[in-house]
Amino acid sequence: MPLNDFLNNDSRAGNPDKRKRVFKKNTGSIPDIDDLYKGIIERDRAKLARAITLIESNASRHFESAQMLLEKLQSIKADSIRIGISGVPGAGKSTFIEALGTYLCSKGHRVAVLAVDPSSSLSGGSILGDKTRMEALAKNPRAFIRPSPTSGTLGGVHRKTRESITLCEAAGFDVILVETVGVGQSEAMVREMVDFFLLLVLTGAGDELQGMKKGIMELADAIIVNKADGSNLPYAQKTKNEYNGILHFIQPATAGWETKAYTCSSLTLDGIEEFWQVIGKFREVCGNSGVLQQRRKDQLKDWMSSLITEQLTNLFYQSHVVQKFLPEAQKEVMAGNKPAVKAVQELFDHFRDAMKE
Amino acid sequence: MPLNDFLNNDSRAGNPDKRKRVFKKNTGSIPDIDDLYKGIIERDRAKLARAITLIESNASRHFESAQMLLEKLQSIKADSIRIGISGVPGAGKSTFIEALGTYLCSKGHRVAVLAVDPSSSLSGGSILGDKTRMEALAKNPRAFIRPSPTSGTLGGVHRKTRESITLCEAAGFDVILVETVGVGQSEAMVREMVDFFLLLVLTGAGDELQGMKKGIMELADAIIVNKADGSNLPYAQKTKNEYNGILHFIQPATAGWETKAYTCSSLTLDGIEEFWQVIGKFREVCGNSGVLQQRRKDQLKDWMSSLITEQLTNLFYQSHVVQKFLPEAQKEVMAGNKPAVKAVQELFDHFRDAMKE
Repeated sequence: MPLNDFLNNDSRAGNPDKRKRVFKKNTGSIPDIDDLYKGIIERDRAKLARAITLIESNASRHFESAQMLLEKLQSIKADSIRIGISGVPGAGKSTFIEALGTYLCSKGHRVAVLAVDPSSSLSGGSILGDKTRMEALAKNPRAFIRPSPTSGTLGGVHRKTRESITLCEAAGFDVILVETVGVGQSEAMVREMVDFFLLLVLTGAGDELQGMKKGIMELADAIIVNKADGSNLPYAQKTKNEYNGILHFIQPATAGWETKAYTCSSLTLDGIEEFWQVIGKFREVCGNSGVLQQRRKDQLKDWMSSLITEQLTNLFYQSHVVQKFLPEAQKEVMAGNKPAVKAVQELFDHFRDAMKE
Repeated sequence: MPLNDFLNNDSRAGNPDKRKRVFKKNTGSIPDIDDLYKGIIERDRAKLARAITLIESNASRHFESAQMLLEKLQSIKADSIRIGISGVPGAGKSTFIEALGTYLCSKGHRVAVLAVDPSSSLSGGSILGDKTRMEALAKNPRAFIRPSPTSGTLGGVHRKTRESITLCEAAGFDVILVETVGVGQSEAMVREMVDFFLLLVLTGAGDELQGMKKGIMELADAIIVNKADGSNLPYAQKTKNEYNGILHFIQPATAGWETKAYTCSSLTLDGIEEFWQVIGKFREVCGNSGVLQQRRKDQLKDWMSSLITEQLTNLFYQSHVVQKFLPEAQKEVMAGNKPAVKAVQELFDHFRDAMKE
């Protein structure tokens, strides 16, 4: 089975809608790699978009082309900052990104916005499916907005977003914003592909904390209390202080960097410039200490390990002998009729035999 | 390669001390399985101890015998409660276990104490290596104390402790206490093999929380503020209230069960009987709802999955082709010279070829 089929495998493979979609993609033409390569280094946003579509494709022959393209682009070294932005639905992620992105474009930066949304593979895209959410930024010639990959397992989304970052950087985007919803396992995934992780929250730390997935605060390099404007301002200040109190007890996500809480308004733009100064300080401190460079290397190594684990798991669970014998083995173990280690040993005997075929 | 070698593999395989130890074990005789089986069902503690030594052995032929023994014992259904007990060093785990164990023995229970100590595989046993720490309990004919397995990866320790629980239950122990140090990944591992998870803490919730590994409170079905005696009593009460305040924001570890904080003194024995009443209530509530039965089934299924993942990982990383090509592949990816997915694809091509041999 080709590698791509492993990477893109998901439990909905038997779903007729899904099959139809894959089939449709298979009938598409293979883009000219040299043409895409040239387009990307010439900073052509339309070509960049087509290249991302190529790497998001589930078809095996597209996969080979995509890897060829990535390999060609590998030599382009970009000086970029990758920022993950998370927050529960309603925290104002898109208005914040629009405000920040527009500010950065005005300062001469080129800003790419990518999304990792675990729900999008089920619903067909929720957080960035509608580009009109960031209408002003989408129209800015210095910005590029890309919705979440709409299919593949979470691991597959991970791969596609990581590779999209590479493409965007090769196309000259120096600020990469990766947006995700603060409700699931996607935050840890985004944390593993960015330099800096920002958590957007609303006023009322206690209530907020109750709804917040455990462990997300520990990922953050900064927490911004959003919508700090009008009558909400004093509450936002209070919430900021509450978060700073809680952060005191949490180990910082980045060695040598103190995670702090700030306030921001995407309406008045108060706090947007301050946030960019925080990023500047972060690059200075963690760049000088070497933490940032080491983080990127470690991320690549860890990513290789997760790709390996994902593939091994697929190799095993998709093996016809495992699919044949696993359900009965699980039943026997759960009923207490067979020791778990013995059951696994038997499965591996079958698996190894099948691998020889 | 035999399954046991996978399961017991650790990074110190090349260490000469380790090799010598394994060799020494290999020269030992294989115990008579029927004799051990008979000893266990006759509740002979010496035979139980020998059976646990057998399952802890790293030798392949001992592994086969151990699995035969476990299979023979599989039909014995025990009505037991498995309690995990964790806390930072100094929280008073051993005096608490001694007090609780002695109380339970006096009430007619038979109590087995097992330890999971990730540090013991490096230091040669730290939390329960010295039985004299629980001298009174160790002498009690209704109790059985077993130090942590002293070798194997953390996954290996997991396997051995799980299988030791099975042996203890077959030998008529109806209360299984699994002790672990509240500083690492061993808590999550213990949580996966027990019905009830107890966290022992000391006074001063704030300070304590700072030193506590994140996420451990979320595992607990009860928190006991220990050493609640003498001049420390009012502080312990205060700390209990602080923990109850924090627990309010945390999702309970067990559906339908409210995790609460209590105080206890292993000196005055205040709180020991109350804790046993909490356990009784837990068994009643979660037994009636079916949560407890489902938890045990889920634990077995999850355990099978982790055994499979562990074995797959070993199969891959111990493959001679992977050992040959992985370091260079990692170097290329970390240097940014090769896309990660392509590097992994090449490794899998080698791996699949090698599996056919």
